[in-house]
Amino acid sequence: MKALQDRKRPLYLKIANHIEGQIRNGALRVGDRAPSIRALKRQQGVSVSTVLQAYFWLENRGWIEPRPQSGFYIRVPYADMAPEPEFRASRSSPTDVGVGSFINEVARNISNPANVPLGAATASPTLYPNRKLNQMIQRIARHKPDHSARYDAPNGVEELRHQIARRAPAFGCSFSPGEIIVTCGAMEALHLALRAVSRSGDVIAIESPTYFGVLQTIESLGIKAIEIPTHPRDGMDLDILESSIRKHRARACVTMTNCHNPLGFVLSSDYKKELAAVTAKRNVALIEDDVYGDLTFDGERPKTAKSFDREGLVLLCNSFSKVLAPGFRVGWIQAGRFQPQVEKLKFITTIASPSLPQLAVAGFIESGGYDRHLRKLRTAFADQVQWVSQAIGRYFPNGTKISRPAGGFVLWIELPSEIDATKLYRSALAQNISILPGVIFSPSGRFQNHIRVSCGQSSSDAIDRALIALGKLAEKSLA
Amino acid sequence: MKALQDRKRPLYLKIANHIEGQIRNGALRVGDRAPSIRALKRQQGVSVSTVLQAYFWLENRGWIEPRPQSGFYIRVPYADMAPEPEFRASRSSPTDVGVGSFINEVARNISNPANVPLGAATASPTLYPNRKLNQMIQRIARHKPDHSARYDAPNGVEELRHQIARRAPAFGCSFSPGEIIVTCGAMEALHLALRAVSRSGDVIAIESPTYFGVLQTIESLGIKAIEIPTHPRDGMDLDILESSIRKHRARACVTMTNCHNPLGFVLSSDYKKELAAVTAKRNVALIEDDVYGDLTFDGERPKTAKSFDREGLVLLCNSFSKVLAPGFRVGWIQAGRFQPQVEKLKFITTIASPSLPQLAVAGFIESGGYDRHLRKLRTAFADQVQWVSQAIGRYFPNGTKISRPAGGFVLWIELPSEIDATKLYRSALAQNISILPGVIFSPSGRFQNHIRVSCGQSSSDAIDRALIALGKLAEKSLA
Repeated sequence: MKALQDRKRPLYLKIANHIEGQIRNGALRVGDRAPSIRALKRQQGVSVSTVLQAYFWLENRGWIEPRPQSGFYIRVPYADMAPEPEFRASRSSPTDVGVGSFINEVARNISNPANVPLGAATASPTLYPNRKLNQMIQRIARHKPDHSARYDAPNGVEELRHQIARRAPAFGCSFSPGEIIVTCGAMEALHLALRAVSRSGDVIAIESPTYFGVLQTIESLGIKAIEIPTHPRDGMDLDILESSIRKHRARACVTMTNCHNPLGFVLSSDYKKELAAVTAKRNVALIEDDVYGDLTFDGERPKTAKSFDREGLVLLCNSFSKVLAPGFRVGWIQAGRFQPQVEKLKFITTIASPSLPQLAVAGFIESGGYDRHLRKLRTAFADQVQWVSQAIGRYFPNGTKISRPAGGFVLWIELPSEIDATKLYRSALAQNISILPGVIFSPSGRFQNHIRVSCGQSSSDAIDRALIALGKLAEKSLA
Repeated sequence: MKALQDRKRPLYLKIANHIEGQIRNGALRVGDRAPSIRALKRQQGVSVSTVLQAYFWLENRGWIEPRPQSGFYIRVPYADMAPEPEFRASRSSPTDVGVGSFINEVARNISNPANVPLGAATASPTLYPNRKLNQMIQRIARHKPDHSARYDAPNGVEELRHQIARRAPAFGCSFSPGEIIVTCGAMEALHLALRAVSRSGDVIAIESPTYFGVLQTIESLGIKAIEIPTHPRDGMDLDILESSIRKHRARACVTMTNCHNPLGFVLSSDYKKELAAVTAKRNVALIEDDVYGDLTFDGERPKTAKSFDREGLVLLCNSFSKVLAPGFRVGWIQAGRFQPQVEKLKFITTIASPSLPQLAVAGFIESGGYDRHLRKLRTAFADQVQWVSQAIGRYFPNGTKISRPAGGFVLWIELPSEIDATKLYRSALAQNISILPGVIFSPSGRFQNHIRVSCGQSSSDAIDRALIALGKLAEKSLA
């Protein structure tokens, strides 16, 4: 697997990663001159343009800087000057989730096209393979003209379930197409999963911070949430998770083990194995949201906790919304032993997902362009995350802390504790800049001095100006 | 409005309706010779082919029969020989809905393509305007290539909401596009409506019989149902409805006032006005499922109870699944005062509906082909319903009663009371014929000797053979 991925990694990226490794292990230090283009060309046996590509990549990420007439020098990336957000392990009690109306207000503003979109986890439309998807759609319209003249079965179009099952080994799983249920995005998958495993009054363990959509669903179902302290790099504390499940008789745990939203971490396979073991030991369901799992910056597709599921207790939720086409609303769930319940709920929620987007995704994957597209997308997001990190490091007040995502495209920012991030959110909105306030990521309103910033948009002057303005607003609220 | 529809009605249909009227009012009686083609041509000033078209239409519906060398004669339609299903007014108490697992079993078999499809309310794919919809899709793919590269707002694509609002006067309403929320079919609309107006433990008044999908949703939400006796032609008894709401503190009522599923009636505007008044008086929500409202056989688009809603208490649910493309999953809801709750629930259920099918429907309606298509579809369904009614009248045991739908495409059949329709359902399934057993239309398992037969499929030998086989199975279970 590793070798295969290595073969597919472009040459320039191998060289860039090699230099990056030398910086990380200290072989090259801040202020050192990077190897000359000519030297690297000889040493690696590659063309000048490949070396230049590698150096642009490193420069984009802030590892090196060009000095006129003198070559490239190792530098401290701006982001590395700002520390990471802090972790405070605190135990809590199950709480009714009551952030609903504020989240709604935020959610409504999220999709307002008048705002600079640093709020929603959406990407520039140009990053998606629209041309190829449209070719696929036109082919379906020609060759299968009655594609939408029937109700599909609740579990979805067979062609798509087949393609998903074929990709399952990449995240450590082995599924048959019959185990997949296609949903309207990962949101519906999460929603059906929560309804399948719990009912009103139950307690569910969640990461803190966690994706606000999960909190809204939990609230709408009358479920109580118990927040498990979640480390910015290491995930939930599994001892606290286990004791909380035991103490509060939690029915399930919701987790994001890969490219966490909002923290950005990718957890190790060992951690995932232990997480699956802990929940299995307590016989509770584990709802795993893997929606960013294809977007790790190092290009290795990480495993899932699902791959360590021996009891059918893990409900793996995913979608193509972050990688192919948000507007297709094509997601899926492998619900383990809860499959019958989820299938029933799918039927009564929407009968089945629309056929055409499913057929288009299946055709796109089958045509073989998916992995190539993912490589381009990952590189783009890595660049954008690095670029926004640097800008925030440059423009925001001293004391600002920035997450180090290993994938995905959101940053979790801890502002100096004096700053009320909800006020910052409102004053930013007044300037037509959309960000997300930290409080919506916690049912008890934690993270009052945090914001989430999406790096999904390609770098532009407008975004740079928005980040400058945000930095000024943050400075002002300090004064 | 009436004049407008008259103008649009084809000439042959005017002539056919004229003759039909003469039969209904007794001017022409069974056994009479119908006016000769030549006489009618002269009398109405139309061509011979128009008269022939009219006579074919009347023949298809069983009003006349050709006799060799002698012209057309008035006859009793087969269906008219079988009486209508009986109405038994019985009061009941709120019950937990517990038919879920059996409905699931039925729902799974419904979509099995190996069966002759007389179960699901689905139509022949050839009845839908697939070619035009595909043209629309290809146009969108060419001219708006990034149609799916963004998340839409939860309430849906503006173009579609605009077209829906434009059509609202046809069913007696006046909406702005901002009041519409697009859903994944009427099923999601009903689901969101039920969640918006009630919570676990509440009581909801429902028609008896009612659409089984509503019962499944009610069950999944832990709601109790109170069955209101529903007359095959006249709908719910409104006195019983009002007293039941009062006595059991019902939170809402679910109704289908047009082309009822499964009974087929279209209620009068006076009834709808009173229904809206009764629920408003008790301050309960009225969830109105109008999914077949465009499919009345007489071509007049009936009003909705929503058109008499002065309090914002009516949630009108609809979709394009029965008339354009089931696989698009495009429905909508106008939720009155519950709009904020429904919009929030839509976001957390699926974020938004897929964009492309919405754009295709909007384009199709805007292009002006919608009314023409509806006229064709209504005629086709009227023919098919008449054809299946006649076949059932011919093949089924004495004592079988058949509904007289005024629109839509399902028949409600009351079999002799000795017949267990659930057993009939199972033995039919064993012969690869799918029908729906009556018990799934009632939370308390009423209608044990009823079945619902879908007439959505164009007439064919296979369907005729299936109806013969069904008749034999019914005869056998009498013996």
